[in-house]
Amino acid sequence: MSLPPTAVLDVRLTRMRARLAEAKLDALVVTQPANQRYLASHRGSAGVLVVTPTRVDLLVDTRYQEAVRARQESLQACPGLQPHLVPGSYDDALVEYLGTLDAPVVGFEARHVSVATHDAWRRRLGESAHRLRPTERLVEDMRAVKDAFELDVLSRSAAGLTPVAEAAFAAVRPGVAEREVAAAIESALRDAGFERPSFDTIVASGPNAALPHHRAGDRRIEIGDLVVLDFGGVLDGYCSDLTRTVSVGRPSEDVRRIYAAVLAAQQAAIATVGPGVDASAVDRAARAVLEQAGLGEAFGHGTGHGLGLEVHEEPRLSRTSTGTTPPPRPLQPGMVVTIEPGAYLPGWGGVRIEDDVVVTANGRDVLTSVPRELLECGVN
Amino acid sequence: MSLPPTAVLDVRLTRMRARLAEAKLDALVVTQPANQRYLASHRGSAGVLVVTPTRVDLLVDTRYQEAVRARQESLQACPGLQPHLVPGSYDDALVEYLGTLDAPVVGFEARHVSVATHDAWRRRLGESAHRLRPTERLVEDMRAVKDAFELDVLSRSAAGLTPVAEAAFAAVRPGVAEREVAAAIESALRDAGFERPSFDTIVASGPNAALPHHRAGDRRIEIGDLVVLDFGGVLDGYCSDLTRTVSVGRPSEDVRRIYAAVLAAQQAAIATVGPGVDASAVDRAARAVLEQAGLGEAFGHGTGHGLGLEVHEEPRLSRTSTGTTPPPRPLQPGMVVTIEPGAYLPGWGGVRIEDDVVVTANGRDVLTSVPRELLECGVN
Repeated sequence: MSLPPTAVLDVRLTRMRARLAEAKLDALVVTQPANQRYLASHRGSAGVLVVTPTRVDLLVDTRYQEAVRARQESLQACPGLQPHLVPGSYDDALVEYLGTLDAPVVGFEARHVSVATHDAWRRRLGESAHRLRPTERLVEDMRAVKDAFELDVLSRSAAGLTPVAEAAFAAVRPGVAEREVAAAIESALRDAGFERPSFDTIVASGPNAALPHHRAGDRRIEIGDLVVLDFGGVLDGYCSDLTRTVSVGRPSEDVRRIYAAVLAAQQAAIATVGPGVDASAVDRAARAVLEQAGLGEAFGHGTGHGLGLEVHEEPRLSRTSTGTTPPPRPLQPGMVVTIEPGAYLPGWGGVRIEDDVVVTANGRDVLTSVPRELLECGVN
Repeated sequence: MSLPPTAVLDVRLTRMRARLAEAKLDALVVTQPANQRYLASHRGSAGVLVVTPTRVDLLVDTRYQEAVRARQESLQACPGLQPHLVPGSYDDALVEYLGTLDAPVVGFEARHVSVATHDAWRRRLGESAHRLRPTERLVEDMRAVKDAFELDVLSRSAAGLTPVAEAAFAAVRPGVAEREVAAAIESALRDAGFERPSFDTIVASGPNAALPHHRAGDRRIEIGDLVVLDFGGVLDGYCSDLTRTVSVGRPSEDVRRIYAAVLAAQQAAIATVGPGVDASAVDRAARAVLEQAGLGEAFGHGTGHGLGLEVHEEPRLSRTSTGTTPPPRPLQPGMVVTIEPGAYLPGWGGVRIEDDVVVTANGRDVLTSVPRELLECGVN
C-alpha cells in the first residue's frame, strides 16, 4: 500500500484551504471516506476530519488510533494533523470539538451527511446550529483533476488489467458458468497485485448481456453467446475499469454489425476527449454513432464516469442532466474517465466496450491497453 | 442466486404495512439498498421503492428495466409491484410520482437520505414539502429478526466458512505475505460457492494484529507472530463473518494467557445470548472477563453486530450508547449476531475470536463451526 508522501498532502491541503476561502468557510467537516483519504490518508469506516485555514483535526475511535499514530510518524504523515480520540458517540465528540473551534461558519458535506445525522448535530449544537453550512463537491471537484502521484497510480492500475483480460478471455468457454469466469478474473486481479476488485465483476452471457448491471450468475456459457466482461481492480487505493465483449464461437452477421457500431461509437467518443471539451459532447459523440446505426434506443446509460479513489466519481460523461447533478463542465488535463458506450437488446444480448482515458494538455491518452477487435473465445 | 419466493415477500410487505399504520404514514419512500432488496428483491445501485397500504411502486432507470420485468414474471415476483421507468433525474421522477399519490404523509429514510437530496426534494415539492416525514430504522428493525428463508440462507452462509478457514490456516506460513493469505481466503470463498467476500478480508500479522481494522498488506509473516484472520462471504445475498487468531510456531506464555482470556470472554458472551436479554448485557459479559484479566483497556470496540443482507446491521452489541444510536433492546428469537471480543496491544499484537450466533426460543445456536483452540500454523 503506497500512500502519498507528506509533500503531496501538503499541496492538496493548500488547495483545499484556497477553496475554503473562496466558499467563505472557516472550517470544513469532511465525512466522505474517499475525501478523508485524499486529504489526510485516513482510511476506515469511521472518523471525522476537520480542515480549517490553520488546522487539520481527525476525530477517531480507538480502532484507528494506532494506525493513525504510526502513519503520522512515517514519511506519509499528513502535515499538521492532530488526532482526537472519540470515546463514545462521534456526534457528541464533533459537537464538543466544534465548541472549542473559533470558526463562525462550518461547512459540511451535504451529499454525504444524512438528514438524521444533521438533525443530531443541530439538536446538540442548539443555538449555534446556525454555524453549519451545507456544501457540495468541494473535495470531489478537486479530486476530479488528478495530481502527478495519482496519475502514476491510475496508469499502473489501468495497465495492470492487461493480464487480467487475457485470463478472462481464456476462461470463457462453452459449459463454464458465469460465476467461474468471474472467479478466474478475480484470481487474476490478485495475481496482478490488485488489492481487490473495484466493483462486483460482471460476466453477462447470452440474454444476460442485455442487462447492463447483471453481475455473474449460474448460467453456463453456450456456443453463439456474446459475453460482456466488465471488471477492474484497486491498486494503491485507485480504481481501474475495463469492459470487453467476446463472442463464443463465430459471431453472426448481426453480432458483427452491432459490435462494429459500438466500437465506432467508443472510438468517436475517445477522439472527442480533450481539454476544454464539454463532458456532454463526449456523450453526444458516442450517441450520434449509435443512433445512426439504429441503436439509439439500445444505449440507455451514460458514456462514462471519472475514475480515482472511487470507481464512479466526477466528472460524469452523460447527456445534459435534467436532475440534481450539475451541468457538465469542460474537461481539464489530469481528469481520468471511462469511455463505455453499449447497446442492449432484450432477449438477444448486448455489447459494451470500455477503456480508461486521461485528458492531456493536447488531447487524451488511453491508459488501458487490451485489443478491441471482436474476439472469438472458447474454440480452438 | 436464490431469491425469496413471492409468499415470503408477501409476508414482509404485510408486516411493513402494519408498521406504516403504527407510524401513521400513508407511504414510505425506501432508498436504502438492502431495504429495497428485503421488501421487493430489487438489487442495484439505483432505484426508489415506495410502499403504501395498497401499492408497491419501483422507480427504476432503463438499466434495471429488463431485470425487473424478468423477475416479475418469475416465482420470485414481488406481489403487486409496479415498475415505473425513470427517464432522467430520480428526484424529478419521485416528485412527479408523489404528485399522483393520494398520501398526505410520506415517510423517508432519514439515515439514508442526504441533506442535499432532501433539499432537492423539498425544492421540487414546494408547498407540499410538508408531506415528507423523517423516519429511522422502520425496515432495519424488521430485518433484525430474520424469517425462515433468511435463517436457512444465513446458516448455509456461516457453515460454508469451514473449508475457507481450513484454507486460511494452511496458507499461514513464515515468509508468506498477508496479501497472499487474503488471496487464498478469497479464492476458497469462491470455491465454497460464495458470491463475494462480505467485506475486505483482514490478515493482520505480528504488530499489525494490534490494529483491529488493518486489512492485508505486504508484511511477510514471521515465526512467533500472532495472525488475526477475519473474513466472510456473501451467499444468496446474506453475509457471514468469522475471525480466528493463529500462532505461527509455538505460542509464548503471554500469547497463551491473552488468547485464553479472549476465548473466555467470547464464551461468556455467547452463553449470555438469549431471548429477552439486553444486547448491552452480552457486551458486558465479554468486557467483564477481559477486565478481570487486566485487558479492559485493550478491548476498544463493541462485542458484535447483526448479520444479514448487510455485514453490519441491527442489533449492535455494545456498551450502552451515549450517542445517536438507540438504546440496546432485548434480543429476540431469529436475530443473528456476531460475537467477537478482542484484545489489542500496540506494538505487540492482538487476538480476536468471532463466531456467528442465532438467538433461539431457549437460548442460542452457534452457526459457525470452526475449532476455537489456539492453532499453531506454518510448522510441521
